[in-house]
Amino acid sequence: MPATSKVPGYYLQFASDNTAGACPEALAAFNAANAGFISSYGEDEVTRIVCDRLRQLFATDCDVYFVFNGTAANSLALASLCQSYQGVICAETAHVETDECGAPEFFSNGAKLLLARQQDGKMDAANVEHLITRRRDQHYPRPKVLTLTQATELGTLYSLDEIAVLTAIAKRHGLHTHMDGARFANALAALEVSPADMTWRAGIDVLCFGGTKMGLPLGEAVVFFNRALGEDFSWRCKQAGQLASKMRFLSAPWLAMLDDDTWLKHAGHANRLARRLAERLAALPGLACRPAQANSVFVQLPEPAMARLRQTGWVFHTFIGDMARFMCSWATTEAAVDHLAADIAASL
Amino acid sequence: MPATSKVPGYYLQFASDNTAGACPEALAAFNAANAGFISSYGEDEVTRIVCDRLRQLFATDCDVYFVFNGTAANSLALASLCQSYQGVICAETAHVETDECGAPEFFSNGAKLLLARQQDGKMDAANVEHLITRRRDQHYPRPKVLTLTQATELGTLYSLDEIAVLTAIAKRHGLHTHMDGARFANALAALEVSPADMTWRAGIDVLCFGGTKMGLPLGEAVVFFNRALGEDFSWRCKQAGQLASKMRFLSAPWLAMLDDDTWLKHAGHANRLARRLAERLAALPGLACRPAQANSVFVQLPEPAMARLRQTGWVFHTFIGDMARFMCSWATTEAAVDHLAADIAASL
Amino acid sequence: MPATSKVPGYYLQFASDNTAGACPEALAAFNAANAGFISSYGEDEVTRIVCDRLRQLFATDCDVYFVFNGTAANSLALASLCQSYQGVICAETAHVETDECGAPEFFSNGAKLLLARQQDGKMDAANVEHLITRRRDQHYPRPKVLTLTQATELGTLYSLDEIAVLTAIAKRHGLHTHMDGARFANALAALEVSPADMTWRAGIDVLCFGGTKMGLPLGEAVVFFNRALGEDFSWRCKQAGQLASKMRFLSAPWLAMLDDDTWLKHAGHANRLARRLAERLAALPGLACRPAQANSVFVQLPEPAMARLRQTGWVFHTFIGDMARFMCSWATTEAAVDHLAADIAASL
Amino acid sequence: MPATSKVPGYYLQFASDNTAGACPEALAAFNAANAGFISSYGEDEVTRIVCDRLRQLFATDCDVYFVFNGTAANSLALASLCQSYQGVICAETAHVETDECGAPEFFSNGAKLLLARQQDGKMDAANVEHLITRRRDQHYPRPKVLTLTQATELGTLYSLDEIAVLTAIAKRHGLHTHMDGARFANALAALEVSPADMTWRAGIDVLCFGGTKMGLPLGEAVVFFNRALGEDFSWRCKQAGQLASKMRFLSAPWLAMLDDDTWLKHAGHANRLARRLAERLAALPGLACRPAQANSVFVQLPEPAMARLRQTGWVFHTFIGDMARFMCSWATTEAAVDHLAADIAASL
Repeated sequence: MPATSKVPGYYLQFASDNTAGACPEALAAFNAANAGFISSYGEDEVTRIVCDRLRQLFATDCDVYFVFNGTAANSLALASLCQSYQGVICAETAHVETDECGAPEFFSNGAKLLLARQQDGKMDAANVEHLITRRRDQHYPRPKVLTLTQATELGTLYSLDEIAVLTAIAKRHGLHTHMDGARFANALAALEVSPADMTWRAGIDVLCFGGTKMGLPLGEAVVFFNRALGEDFSWRCKQAGQLASKMRFLSAPWLAMLDDDTWLKHAGHANRLARRLAERLAALPGLACRPAQANSVFVQLPEPAMARLRQTGWVFHTFIGDMARFMCSWATTEAAVDHLAADIAASL
Repeated sequence: MPATSKVPGYYLQFASDNTAGACPEALAAFNAANAGFISSYGEDEVTRIVCDRLRQLFATDCDVYFVFNGTAANSLALASLCQSYQGVICAETAHVETDECGAPEFFSNGAKLLLARQQDGKMDAANVEHLITRRRDQHYPRPKVLTLTQATELGTLYSLDEIAVLTAIAKRHGLHTHMDGARFANALAALEVSPADMTWRAGIDVLCFGGTKMGLPLGEAVVFFNRALGEDFSWRCKQAGQLASKMRFLSAPWLAMLDDDTWLKHAGHANRLARRLAERLAALPGLACRPAQANSVFVQLPEPAMARLRQTGWVFHTFIGDMARFMCSWATTEAAVDHLAADIAASL
Repeated sequence: MPATSKVPGYYLQFASDNTAGACPEALAAFNAANAGFISSYGEDEVTRIVCDRLRQLFATDCDVYFVFNGTAANSLALASLCQSYQGVICAETAHVETDECGAPEFFSNGAKLLLARQQDGKMDAANVEHLITRRRDQHYPRPKVLTLTQATELGTLYSLDEIAVLTAIAKRHGLHTHMDGARFANALAALEVSPADMTWRAGIDVLCFGGTKMGLPLGEAVVFFNRALGEDFSWRCKQAGQLASKMRFLSAPWLAMLDDDTWLKHAGHANRLARRLAERLAALPGLACRPAQANSVFVQLPEPAMARLRQTGWVFHTFIGDMARFMCSWATTEAAVDHLAADIAASL
Repeated sequence: MPATSKVPGYYLQFASDNTAGACPEALAAFNAANAGFISSYGEDEVTRIVCDRLRQLFATDCDVYFVFNGTAANSLALASLCQSYQGVICAETAHVETDECGAPEFFSNGAKLLLARQQDGKMDAANVEHLITRRRDQHYPRPKVLTLTQATELGTLYSLDEIAVLTAIAKRHGLHTHMDGARFANALAALEVSPADMTWRAGIDVLCFGGTKMGLPLGEAVVFFNRALGEDFSWRCKQAGQLASKMRFLSAPWLAMLDDDTWLKHAGHANRLARRLAERLAALPGLACRPAQANSVFVQLPEPAMARLRQTGWVFHTFIGDMARFMCSWATTEAAVDHLAADIAASL
């Protein structure tokens, strides 16, 4: 397979959407940002411009902050929405619950995650309301935040209506709402709706807008649509080790992503390749798959097949929902997808 | 002055050593690291190589971790050295005390900073011992860590003997020792000693080795010479939002810095220009200066002079020790130093 | 029913074992402790004597601390056994998970509770081992503590062998072990074994020995059999608001409880009355009960029956395992049990 | 001196106002509260009545909570007034700074104490304003709370005007105000003003009303005059291990203290005896004393005199302000004061 000899780490590419590097546009902007002397800690022109561009993108006067990674983005956002003795409702499969090593509890100094039942990664609305209302006593953390992930950990999407139903329940009971958008770009590209419609118009107070997985070298944006909730957020970031001194390197690449809808093109590309892979696998007999609505494909492979694939060199994970997961990114190629699909077929 | 029209942000350059961008070597390495697919979260070859190179540099089998910034490096390191009910002894002028917005207290969940008297930024050894021994009751946090900054916030340096005296006091009383090396490169270049001699051989358990100020776009290394103290540190980093998914971008630029002693050349350059500036100012009548031992110059300027300088465009800070501070970096030029010196002379 | 008119709050007595006051022996000791002036913060003779008596009781040189309540006892003990980025394995029905409002997470600054499957309140050993071993990556808190509750929240008991099996699994994987003994006295009285056999000889590192529910006005003892784990615990208590200034009032009543096995007599009394109630209910047709091994009775009552009981005045809870729960204490009388049993029978 | 043989711990009585036990009225109420069964966790009649009585006392509709000790009262109150990245201004001699082992930092998850200059324990208003206004950047915790201690750690009192001046500065800059009233009773008895005038009418948002030092066996009241600031405070208490299950024992004794102004009589007694001691010492040549405005006497004794006093048996502390401190309580007698005064005179 000639491709494999040319691309370093070729067999790692479906392991995660963060095994890819930065996309060319982001990298170019990163380099361009290097010129000259610039005020540190975000007091600079490029950061101001990016924030304005994000406000335009969301068609509202939101507050925007840049932090280093998704763990911090989600955890700091959640910490700003609740007190230590309150609860955060999330899907039992949510990344904040399963893969953050207790980061939300750490940043909030003890807020408890209350786990809602889910189907394909999407919370069950009735169960969410039950979780909110079932206890009012002091021995149980009062639910204060609802967090949903779009696209979900399992590669599925909430429709705008589904988001609105969940946030309406939250608001009716006085909860704030948070969207973990580590793959926000993929979700938006797939649903083909406006950023405003998928967030604040659907009842979201705060969005963590993932940059790393859509092609930045690093960095996420925390966007407060409910600006009161983000008061003093820059102090919170500073204390928590999330205020970059050379902020230009976090902020400038966003400009390149927003120009010409680069971010959506890359996300749409990743989604298309995931769909391509899913279609190939669907053609194989007897393979159960989750719906591939964003940039991941989950498929139930027999153990011997997985062993053969790994022997070939392919790296992939099975710790989420017991299926094998294959992720596509801006860097995935059709040839690689076809190669993988062929190897999976051969492994069966 | 023609230079000013060509360099963006020219007048910002002495405001801090982080108003400069990344040095060319670091940026080139950053770009080179972008190729192909790489395991995330530090499970990659380049990160392994950099760690080995740092072990060679320090001539010992230390543990190395990369985090995003200095706030996090120092705070996480300190948190790993003490419990919440213990105390951290630092100079009353230490960055962890004056400019981290309570980050050490946050990451340690309440460890108290106990302030030692200082002269020109360097702790008084007798006062340190007094702080350690004066109280043993439960109503006062037991001192458990001694942290010293090299080079200090005030641009001075501890000699190797001075470090050894302080760490010996700490060890005699069961304290761990930490070095805030945000400007470690500048200190080393100035003292012309080996990295091992200035750290573990002088009694330091953990070093925060500053990358950003010496020319990286971002990132610091936490180096545990006492490896037992860093057990499980990668879990601590993960929970605290300091584990980069695309780790290559944090680690790879270190290689370029270590090659051919690039880091020391840049640091030596910054030190030389600071000395040049200090010498120019010393020639002016009636200006009190701190000793300029690393890459900063502190000078007592009359208010009207400072106002005139600022009117000219120069940006500088006075919040540390009430003097005007001018920082040099890898990007500072002789011409800029001479320009600034002339403007200061004219302002008087 | 004449009894009801004489005892204030008569119908509240089965709601919990903390609706009773202090037993006469504890109260007498509390009053006796009031005489004269005594060193504060536990530096007094009576506290020293109680600690010695507890060491005799456990037949080992353990460290003993007194704190105000069970929330603090368990949370501080757990915090001393793990770091913020580690995990605590407990039954999914454990009090620390269901009724402490996030206290363990708060005191530990984020340690995550990892929920083991249980049957009648007792953890499944195979599932515990699975929880310990299933993940080793940095994105998941490393299990570091196993906590079991004796007697359990559901009124059942671990046998000595069952405890030993669980602690052996924990020790094999490097976990520390903690026993939530809010109803330690009831468990011990029921099993008729020695305090040493049910704790350190069965592999327990730290015990939270409940005082309030066995008849003290307030206060619990934290007992470190593994003394290294309790190093500096008094500083931890102080910082966390759990160091009583007039410590005599927390410690002295323990002496009265230990004299003549008063604590075991009261606990045995409560257990006997629970068994009596369980036997009465077992005689009624069609009522499902949990095993009543300590001082609580859980019974599945039809909604209309519960409504009738509540109309009569009886207070009881159903939030634990969906059954009605009736607790007995040192203050419960046979007449009250018979009265309740008769009312339950009539309600059906 | 015959008295000494009759009272246990006689020589400990001036060491602190918490070496005394509970006053007879509080103890009687504690015993009376033991009868019958009572709803736990504060859902009881006696607790409701005490809260109402405290509202009457303060002549306003405040919220009242009972916690176990002063460390917790102050720390939880402060935590409810600020976020982790904010600052709490206190006197450099304040108990929260000097003797709480980092408890405010722990409960607030890192809020920094900002130390105001003081004279005889009272903050300098100009310095307070300077502390509030000197920095606005993200690298420094934003001051959000002003806490003052009445009576101060050094036995002095703020006048109502002095309190009003400080709280006005705080309010002008958006800070909340907290009074550490560990010796609130002594202050009120000395100033002979109304509880309302010394608190909310003077601009105080939250008061920690000390119970232990005025004669309770244990327990403090946290009083929110600004009720919005105490929203959900009972959840905060629960999570922090400060919700008593048998609450009656914390609340009921307050009733006895409030009846017939028992609390003020005891506090006035302690103040009078302190004044008596101060007057005796003033008559001795060459002894410097602080103003003895509440229930403590601070006197500068020569080392040999202190040694002789200690040899006689007297226990006293010198760690606050380098003077010897003698505390009077409800239990101190005139004879004991005269005895101590004579021994001090003889020691010189």
